[in-house]
Amino acid sequence: MRAVDLIQKKRDGGELTPEELKFLIHGYSRGEVPDYQMSAFAMAVFFKGMTASETAALTMSMAESGDQVDLSPIHGVKVDKHSTGGVGDKTTLIIGPLVASVGVPVAKMSGRGLGHTGGTIDKLESIRGFHTELTRDAFMKQVNDIGLSVIGQSSDLAPADKKLYALRDVTGTVESIPLIASSVMSKKIAAGADAIVLDVKTGSGAFMKTVQDAEALAQAMVSIGTNVGRRTAAVISDMDQPLGYAIGNALEVAEALDTLRGQGPEDLTELCLTLGAHMVTLGGKARTFDEAKSKLRKQLENGEALAKFKAFIEAQGGDGGIVDQPDKLPQAPFAVEVTADAEGYISAIQAEQLGLAAMLLGAGRATKEAVIDYAVGLTLRKKVGDTVQAGDTLAILHVRDNNDAARQVADRVRGAYIIQTERPETRPLLLSVVTADGIERFI
Amino acid sequence: MRAVDLIQKKRDGGELTPEELKFLIHGYSRGEVPDYQMSAFAMAVFFKGMTASETAALTMSMAESGDQVDLSPIHGVKVDKHSTGGVGDKTTLIIGPLVASVGVPVAKMSGRGLGHTGGTIDKLESIRGFHTELTRDAFMKQVNDIGLSVIGQSSDLAPADKKLYALRDVTGTVESIPLIASSVMSKKIAAGADAIVLDVKTGSGAFMKTVQDAEALAQAMVSIGTNVGRRTAAVISDMDQPLGYAIGNALEVAEALDTLRGQGPEDLTELCLTLGAHMVTLGGKARTFDEAKSKLRKQLENGEALAKFKAFIEAQGGDGGIVDQPDKLPQAPFAVEVTADAEGYISAIQAEQLGLAAMLLGAGRATKEAVIDYAVGLTLRKKVGDTVQAGDTLAILHVRDNNDAARQVADRVRGAYIIQTERPETRPLLLSVVTADGIERFI
Repeated sequence: MRAVDLIQKKRDGGELTPEELKFLIHGYSRGEVPDYQMSAFAMAVFFKGMTASETAALTMSMAESGDQVDLSPIHGVKVDKHSTGGVGDKTTLIIGPLVASVGVPVAKMSGRGLGHTGGTIDKLESIRGFHTELTRDAFMKQVNDIGLSVIGQSSDLAPADKKLYALRDVTGTVESIPLIASSVMSKKIAAGADAIVLDVKTGSGAFMKTVQDAEALAQAMVSIGTNVGRRTAAVISDMDQPLGYAIGNALEVAEALDTLRGQGPEDLTELCLTLGAHMVTLGGKARTFDEAKSKLRKQLENGEALAKFKAFIEAQGGDGGIVDQPDKLPQAPFAVEVTADAEGYISAIQAEQLGLAAMLLGAGRATKEAVIDYAVGLTLRKKVGDTVQAGDTLAILHVRDNNDAARQVADRVRGAYIIQTERPETRPLLLSVVTADGIERFI
Repeated sequence: MRAVDLIQKKRDGGELTPEELKFLIHGYSRGEVPDYQMSAFAMAVFFKGMTASETAALTMSMAESGDQVDLSPIHGVKVDKHSTGGVGDKTTLIIGPLVASVGVPVAKMSGRGLGHTGGTIDKLESIRGFHTELTRDAFMKQVNDIGLSVIGQSSDLAPADKKLYALRDVTGTVESIPLIASSVMSKKIAAGADAIVLDVKTGSGAFMKTVQDAEALAQAMVSIGTNVGRRTAAVISDMDQPLGYAIGNALEVAEALDTLRGQGPEDLTELCLTLGAHMVTLGGKARTFDEAKSKLRKQLENGEALAKFKAFIEAQGGDGGIVDQPDKLPQAPFAVEVTADAEGYISAIQAEQLGLAAMLLGAGRATKEAVIDYAVGLTLRKKVGDTVQAGDTLAILHVRDNNDAARQVADRVRGAYIIQTERPETRPLLLSVVTADGIERFI
């Protein structure tokens, strides 16, 4: 088999066999297929696409390229969740304890990564004492004991995907649905999930700008899952503004606590209940989605979800006291108000700009070596559809130093709020759901 | 400027500016743009094509990437010729002295290369004493003195093209008209030609399988020439069988001598007169194509073309005696007849198979280091449209050793002749001509 022949086959619209895709991906992973052939192949895929069975075979080849986690010592159906990412996305902090509280085991491997704020692990580490250095056995034992554990992601998870993703990033081949779908799914499958719930964002602040693209990606990922025997559901939600009000590590933990207490922002609560209900359904702990959702809503009201969060924090060495006293979380010394300079309706909030603002304050990493300041970030006071008068507070910055740099960030945040005189059209947070049975649209 | 942005621009159907193409090509040539970006770019070009001005700018960037030959010390309009190649193609040996004999200066840089037989230089070196180690000054002086010289091609001619061609070969991006056209033209332009005549082959034995593809390539190359101020014409000719009857280095020199004497095969003579007449017209030595062609035909009849060949050989140290005594050329010790095993019409001859046969006998190089045997090769006795009886001679092999290997080659040659009972449809040798004025079709 020669890589050049496989590139030409794809270029000319042919369908590659699982053996051919394995030859390419494993060869690439081992350095036998060079970057320059893989990038030409990726560009051919960009133009010609992949069939469902090609996409599934590509995914499995990447999943098999490194460590394949065996979660079988954990009892029950292990359901993983993945979000395509977004500013202020703290859903994992909430959904983990929420679904664990109804008996769905959550064995979460999470990342740190670069970005506006830290990853899930960084957010959790803003809790004093919390650590993720568990052996894999201790990790699985904890899930069996209390239903939930979070550790760092193995660096050898789907290494072929890691290598291919870095290559696509510099060769103009990122925006290909089968390549994006297989990248996400290969890691989830290698991480050992039995079932997967996907949170696919769409809108100006998301990677998928249109609902159509987001649905196509969701369908591709659900199709992969179905093809390889992992039940998969995808929820498509709006990302035209940040989720909830908090952006920053400890600030997001505090908002997660509010939500687990049943007093969280409506958008965040609704998305967590929806994603969680799909996890519960796939995990076999409810017969219908509606049953699962009302079950979960009850857990927010009766304190069970919050109690599960506390048990989880303490099991990993963290200070459970923050659950009842959130002011024990790291606090930034200064608050800077961002005020509106005009009156009208908030018609849009540029989420990317707010994410950048949080990073500039120290909440995220611009480079791998950067140290995160857990306390800093921002709290929004106004969201899309709200009305403001000139001088009203739009957001509060939580800063380490009350200096010129902080004021420049404030200007950036002010600029991210688009204010107009007419009431904006709004669309619901939840747009559609894709499962193996098809697509259900809410708009 | 970033390469990834330019790849995306092309991928999304944008038109690159000359500066952008220069950035890519010169960066690639210098190793600043890596192979993996260039192959993704080439694949994007495969799918999205290039406009005429992009193709011209790409060509010039590659021409400027290395040595640019200055032929201005040579008087007159320097007209170069390029053939897309084919089995038994000895046109350069004939056209050089032919057009030089009417005053068109021919300053030819030629290659050795891999293939069925040697390149033009190898063929000439089958003449005892002939050498091509001339300084560039001596080369140009010889053209001014006798109108014709052939030397080896500078290894630094369009190095970006050489590098890109090698990359395309292993990344499934060879079959792109703008990339093929710019590859050919960049070398001709760097070699200093004022005007260019292209011999584009089509048919089962050629790279361009259909007349439509061959015409598209011809139009792309003529458009490049026109865009960069080099008058260019392209002749599209049939390559469903070898040109002439001889395949092999000294054998082809002998056939070239016959042709220069006015006694050559009809197809070879006709193609040489046509290509030559376009060179004479572009070189300003005739007002019309027809005038140029009859002028050249006269040179074959009156011995002027042959005399020019003799002067040229002697100027470069070769034994001019071969012109009057072709049996002074290297002769293979054994001849092996290939006979027909059925009666009927020759409907096709697989030129590639005959080329491979010649190489197996030792006439060509399979690797760069291989040594060519000038004497060996094959002489066809039958061509497409001829009738045969079983036992008739189809071809003669000229071999170094009369052994089993030679008999296996004979079987290969027999297999290359397709014999059928019905008279085959034949098409003319010359199919169309493309100039800046448009296309003229003969069928």
